[in-house]
Amino acid sequence: MNTRVLLAKRPEGEPKPDDFEIVQEPVPSPGDGELLVRAQHLSLDPYMRGRMSAAKSYAKPVEVGEVMVGQTVGEVVESKNPKFSPGEVVLSQGGWQTYSIATGDGVIKLDPKNAPLTYALGILGMPGQTAYCALLDIGKPKAGETVVVSAASGAVGSVAGQIAKIKGCRVVGVAGSAEKCRYVTEELGFDACIDRRTENLNDALKKHCPDGIDIYFDNTAGTILEAVLRRINLHARIPLVGLIEQYNATGDPVGPNLRPLLVNRALIEGFLFLDHLAHTKQFLADVGGWLREGKLRYREDVVDGLENAPRALIGMLRGENFGKLIVRVR
Amino acid sequence: MNTRVLLAKRPEGEPKPDDFEIVQEPVPSPGDGELLVRAQHLSLDPYMRGRMSAAKSYAKPVEVGEVMVGQTVGEVVESKNPKFSPGEVVLSQGGWQTYSIATGDGVIKLDPKNAPLTYALGILGMPGQTAYCALLDIGKPKAGETVVVSAASGAVGSVAGQIAKIKGCRVVGVAGSAEKCRYVTEELGFDACIDRRTENLNDALKKHCPDGIDIYFDNTAGTILEAVLRRINLHARIPLVGLIEQYNATGDPVGPNLRPLLVNRALIEGFLFLDHLAHTKQFLADVGGWLREGKLRYREDVVDGLENAPRALIGMLRGENFGKLIVRVR
Repeated sequence: MNTRVLLAKRPEGEPKPDDFEIVQEPVPSPGDGELLVRAQHLSLDPYMRGRMSAAKSYAKPVEVGEVMVGQTVGEVVESKNPKFSPGEVVLSQGGWQTYSIATGDGVIKLDPKNAPLTYALGILGMPGQTAYCALLDIGKPKAGETVVVSAASGAVGSVAGQIAKIKGCRVVGVAGSAEKCRYVTEELGFDACIDRRTENLNDALKKHCPDGIDIYFDNTAGTILEAVLRRINLHARIPLVGLIEQYNATGDPVGPNLRPLLVNRALIEGFLFLDHLAHTKQFLADVGGWLREGKLRYREDVVDGLENAPRALIGMLRGENFGKLIVRVR
Repeated sequence: MNTRVLLAKRPEGEPKPDDFEIVQEPVPSPGDGELLVRAQHLSLDPYMRGRMSAAKSYAKPVEVGEVMVGQTVGEVVESKNPKFSPGEVVLSQGGWQTYSIATGDGVIKLDPKNAPLTYALGILGMPGQTAYCALLDIGKPKAGETVVVSAASGAVGSVAGQIAKIKGCRVVGVAGSAEKCRYVTEELGFDACIDRRTENLNDALKKHCPDGIDIYFDNTAGTILEAVLRRINLHARIPLVGLIEQYNATGDPVGPNLRPLLVNRALIEGFLFLDHLAHTKQFLADVGGWLREGKLRYREDVVDGLENAPRALIGMLRGENFGKLIVRVR
């Protein structure tokens, strides 16, 4: 028989055991081009909480009554696909069940001589590559910089922090117990680790990041992001990789909800004119040209007399001006 | 005499007239290499609220008792700098006063034949270049995309939106009155403009951005950013250019305060593994290599039996696992 774990209902807040249902069904048979895989290991990852919700995300939710999704390492037991043979071990989207059918698309053969097979679910799989790509592609670590990693003992954070160490950074983790913090510093080699359950985040970040923070590898968003933002350096980079802190939330977080940034792989970037002075010539050529061609309209709001500047500034901050505010100095 | 507007005290919340003091002082004399400029026009800009506060920012605050900072267009009346002659009109950091001394550094000669002289304070100056560079360098508009601009009738927003139109985008403004909205659509040519004082932002953004939002040119942060985030598209870009909504705030905003992103020109960018599959080979070479060299530690947290997967996932979302969570399927 095939043991399957189904989504029984959509959780409200933290999932409960009865949001799941375990059923026994006959083992399915592969059709032409398909293979039957018996799972050996199933990966559990935070993104699964998202799939249990109906909220729009980057992937379709699991429907109620469907098997829970998940990556598995398993053995091919029957194959009607010429590319796979019984006995081969593969990485596939088998889901939470002992037997699954795959078409062969996206199924990857694993070689136990390369690494323990389960590593394909972790450090050599999606979590490891998430750590590697998000840190290097968005974080762009440089030797000597300070990197903070939340969920630092987890599958993604532990790899991100270690790669940052390999790249010559000072690395400070945030984790959820003294035991995890010990592991993060003593085993993984981070320079420090903050216990978010017992330490004051602002004080601890100040202490452990004396030169500020250049990269924050964010697995959690929420309170840790809030505290980190207070200590970021010039041109800091924050890859937003997870939102663990709000996965179980029943409402929106207070303030701007950054979930859409992750779901849509979007970015917010601070801008300051002074960084772009090298573009002045191009700016004057383009904008001056568009002005002369009549493609740009421009309106000035002119106030007479320096003595009226205070009231004009106060009004502008209330939105009372209309166009570019200028004081004519008499 | 030289009329000067000084910062009398640091404002709490909205500045009040008595936060400023107007004094009359003798006209200063230029030293060797210096020039004396008589202001004709002074620019008033939202950043000035920041300089009135002692909070750390990208520039030093104005000290209490000092003259308020600001860009001016003025005439050279006396010069001990061979590069400038009396009668020339220059753009300089003259501040809120009729007469100022400049060293010549950063002083730019203006030619009235090019454009009205005051344009150097606006569309052809800092506000215009802010619009141009933030939109093009961070926003990267492509024809057919939807761009939302807050403070859309202002010195920066009006230029940003018009450039987005030139680039072939659909452009939706947000402004603070019906009159401003009319100006933004009828004069500036935006496709729509939302009156933030009378319209529901979520409803209006839904109506005017039927294909979602690709770029949000953010002059305000706060509630407009919050509403925009709900409708951003894949790979959306949000240049954070101003924080008008919180300049007068007496405390931190609720939720993550994004001010440090602007002050430090930092970025938050959402990450999803699936966008980076092209890097898998490099990832496996690097991380696989570091593993073999013993440079990476890895810990698995193995749970036995599919029937225990629900409890294990629930526990992981509480932070109860320790290392990469995997279910051994029996």
